[in-house]
Amino acid sequence: MPRADYSDWNCSIARTLGVIGDRWTMLVLREAFFGVRRFDEIQRNLGVARNVLTDRLGRLAEHGILERRRYQDRPERFEYRLTEKGLDLYGPIVALMRWGDMHMADPSGPPVVLTHLTCGHRTVPAHVCSHCGEELKPREMRPEPGPGATPRGRIAAADTAA
Amino acid sequence: MPRADYSDWNCSIARTLGVIGDRWTMLVLREAFFGVRRFDEIQRNLGVARNVLTDRLGRLAEHGILERRRYQDRPERFEYRLTEKGLDLYGPIVALMRWGDMHMADPSGPPVVLTHLTCGHRTVPAHVCSHCGEELKPREMRPEPGPGATPRGRIAAADTAA
Repeated sequence: MPRADYSDWNCSIARTLGVIGDRWTMLVLREAFFGVRRFDEIQRNLGVARNVLTDRLGRLAEHGILERRRYQDRPERFEYRLTEKGLDLYGPIVALMRWGDMHMADPSGPPVVLTHLTCGHRTVPAHVCSHCGEELKPREMRPEPGPGATPRGRIAAADTAA
Repeated sequence: MPRADYSDWNCSIARTLGVIGDRWTMLVLREAFFGVRRFDEIQRNLGVARNVLTDRLGRLAEHGILERRRYQDRPERFEYRLTEKGLDLYGPIVALMRWGDMHMADPSGPPVVLTHLTCGHRTVPAHVCSHCGEELKPREMRPEPGPGATPRGRIAAADTAA
């Protein structure tokens, strides 16, 4: 299946999905945020085929989301660390986790809980308005064309879609 | 390619990806949040193959994320509306959009901007701590096993992975 990169779509969601919108890629990022950096450890944790993992790590490095660093010479071994651009993906990852905690968890509760080290308390990430600080609800939001909108807007040309 | 649903993974991120972790599914949800409800309109906006769209809408309805309603009898026509469970996906969707705005937008700026109708101001969704209200940064967060953690934790069995 050819991989659509959506880079010619006038949509930040589509473009983001063109880079990370693949389940294995998202799960590799999950491992990165859990502090897992080495190929063999990621591979073992996810049970993903080695060639698939090589591909996903390579793409994340190409996009400047992970940085590849050699930590051993013979044999050559690399680890993968989140860059600043990669760290900015924490929002999408915790948002997916939060929805899963709400709708997909076992009756016993969420498998992972988060402590906010700055205040020392257990936390549940919430999306708030940058102006008033209130929690954002989809029915209280209005999307409008922004400065980067093109006349075609978010509409995709059929021939760019895979 | 067989579709992994990750439902036996002890991880809210993986389980969520098992339901919505597919680019077309995410883009269908984008349309839903833009208020686009009808098959033909979604199909035209995304340029997605009709059989693919039928499949993704069917899965979203099965999972209780979209509700299918007949709006015309002859010929039979349906529209798809977000349920409460579906509306809860606003967090992941705006988090993906925010990252795209930061890292994938054209120099002219984001293609879409959001107004928070409650306060009337342009807003940029931010993830904050439910306890102290400060913005959450990945390096200031500690993940720990929660009440739903199993002894295997987030580790997946290789034989469950696609």
